[in-house]
Amino acid sequence: MHPQLTQLSQTVRTAVDARLHQATTDFAGDGAQLRDAMAYSLTNGGKRVRPLLVYASAMAIGNPRGVQGLDWLAAAVEAVHAYSLVHDDLPAMDDDDLRRGKPTAHIAFDEATAILAGDALQTLAFELVVHSPFCADRQVALVRTLARASGARGMVLGQAIDLAAVDQQLTLEQLETMHNYKTGALIGAAVHMGALAAGANDTQLNLLATYARAIGLAFQVQDDILDVISDTETLGKQQGADRQHNKPTYVSLLGLEAAQAKAKELHLCAVRALEAFGPAADALRQLADYIIERRA
Amino acid sequence: MHPQLTQLSQTVRTAVDARLHQATTDFAGDGAQLRDAMAYSLTNGGKRVRPLLVYASAMAIGNPRGVQGLDWLAAAVEAVHAYSLVHDDLPAMDDDDLRRGKPTAHIAFDEATAILAGDALQTLAFELVVHSPFCADRQVALVRTLARASGARGMVLGQAIDLAAVDQQLTLEQLETMHNYKTGALIGAAVHMGALAAGANDTQLNLLATYARAIGLAFQVQDDILDVISDTETLGKQQGADRQHNKPTYVSLLGLEAAQAKAKELHLCAVRALEAFGPAADALRQLADYIIERRA
Repeated sequence: MHPQLTQLSQTVRTAVDARLHQATTDFAGDGAQLRDAMAYSLTNGGKRVRPLLVYASAMAIGNPRGVQGLDWLAAAVEAVHAYSLVHDDLPAMDDDDLRRGKPTAHIAFDEATAILAGDALQTLAFELVVHSPFCADRQVALVRTLARASGARGMVLGQAIDLAAVDQQLTLEQLETMHNYKTGALIGAAVHMGALAAGANDTQLNLLATYARAIGLAFQVQDDILDVISDTETLGKQQGADRQHNKPTYVSLLGLEAAQAKAKELHLCAVRALEAFGPAADALRQLADYIIERRA
Repeated sequence: MHPQLTQLSQTVRTAVDARLHQATTDFAGDGAQLRDAMAYSLTNGGKRVRPLLVYASAMAIGNPRGVQGLDWLAAAVEAVHAYSLVHDDLPAMDDDDLRRGKPTAHIAFDEATAILAGDALQTLAFELVVHSPFCADRQVALVRTLARASGARGMVLGQAIDLAAVDQQLTLEQLETMHNYKTGALIGAAVHMGALAAGANDTQLNLLATYARAIGLAFQVQDDILDVISDTETLGKQQGADRQHNKPTYVSLLGLEAAQAKAKELHLCAVRALEAFGPAADALRQLADYIIERRA
């Protein structure tokens, strides 16, 4: 990771973790286990890529110091991401016991608590947006963006397509559709929300949507590559897990070399979409680099 | 049910069902099963009490014909209610196969689809609010109300407390706390949202909150009474199901007669809170009557 991006990443992590911590501790006395399961699911050791995208995208529009309240939006996007992981890991879904080397929520707690913690994290996401310091018009646009990306026309649809794809032959196009919904939609929402908060115009929003779509897919292609070439320790999950679940991947459809070429092509597409933004988009460029250079 | 309330109830059902139908059919081609499971869960044969509360509460504030867009809010509250039923019925939660005589969502589809449909219904609820025709300020207040009532300080907390209460001895106070969160919070949100949409002031909102709290508890007390005195066919679920799950109820804590007296007392409390509203609150009064007179 570029040193500047590492620094930004640490700043963002601190701000977002503080916001999420406040949001899950500011409770009445009841429900300690529910709150613990929510906090556990939010500190899953993830890289906070989506919060970073919220900030980096606001920076691309300019004057990031002037945009107060990005932590609320970044926390909201992360809460949706965390809830989706908790539910996707459930026995009835992907049935994963480990995530990043830690027991998944339904293992660390129990299945009912994991379902409820996921449910409450989704609610929390919308609560965070409507308590952010942005004006009402903007808050409404932000809720619309997050809801559209999360629900039955976005992330949840992607997970449904993914589950239906186990043991199925998918075409490359079908695989891409699945990923666009399952992970691309929320990545797109993170970018869109950061830009909206910074006052982006429609041209800027469209360019950033192209960027988000490209890095969203690049992220998945790289995940599939890492699932094959990385070892379990670096990855923090079972190496080869996708093959074990008999899920179609870019590598199984294209082969390793063509998948690597595709990741590079998507990276180029992402970077081209940023040209008009000049140096303000450096953090987004560094993030695109990181996504295809990462090893875990 | 009072004939006037029956008529209002039919009008509300038609409007809300149309809104929900539109919201679950206006999809792209993918995800037919997810969409079907959402639609199935929304047409659970329920009495649409929460939507009715949204409308009746707006009417209490006055000029109901002038309040356009209540169908969006009523549909949102119903979507949250439907999602909570789908998740509560899951094997890891209450493990119910039947609801109102129909197979529950995870039986009619499968567990993964039921989890995802529930997730997507929650998202849909927030999407409906931010696409309602109310001004942005009001939409933000409405999202805040719905989120607060649904999440870890509301409905989800109530379900967590309820699950933890299986095989436990609860005091009357603990039972009441659980119900206030589990069902009272969303009933309160329905009343609050209808009133907000109609432009209620703080005094009115407080009186309606007292009303909502009383009928919310009365509803539960009556549920516990019906669980004991009604037969399975009328109830549409296993008669005595709560006792089988070894859950504490008002009847098990108070005895049948004292529980019936409590329901009446709560009804009186609800009706008293409506005095200041005059005849505009007739629908709310009729609803309070219905709640303790119903047989299923």
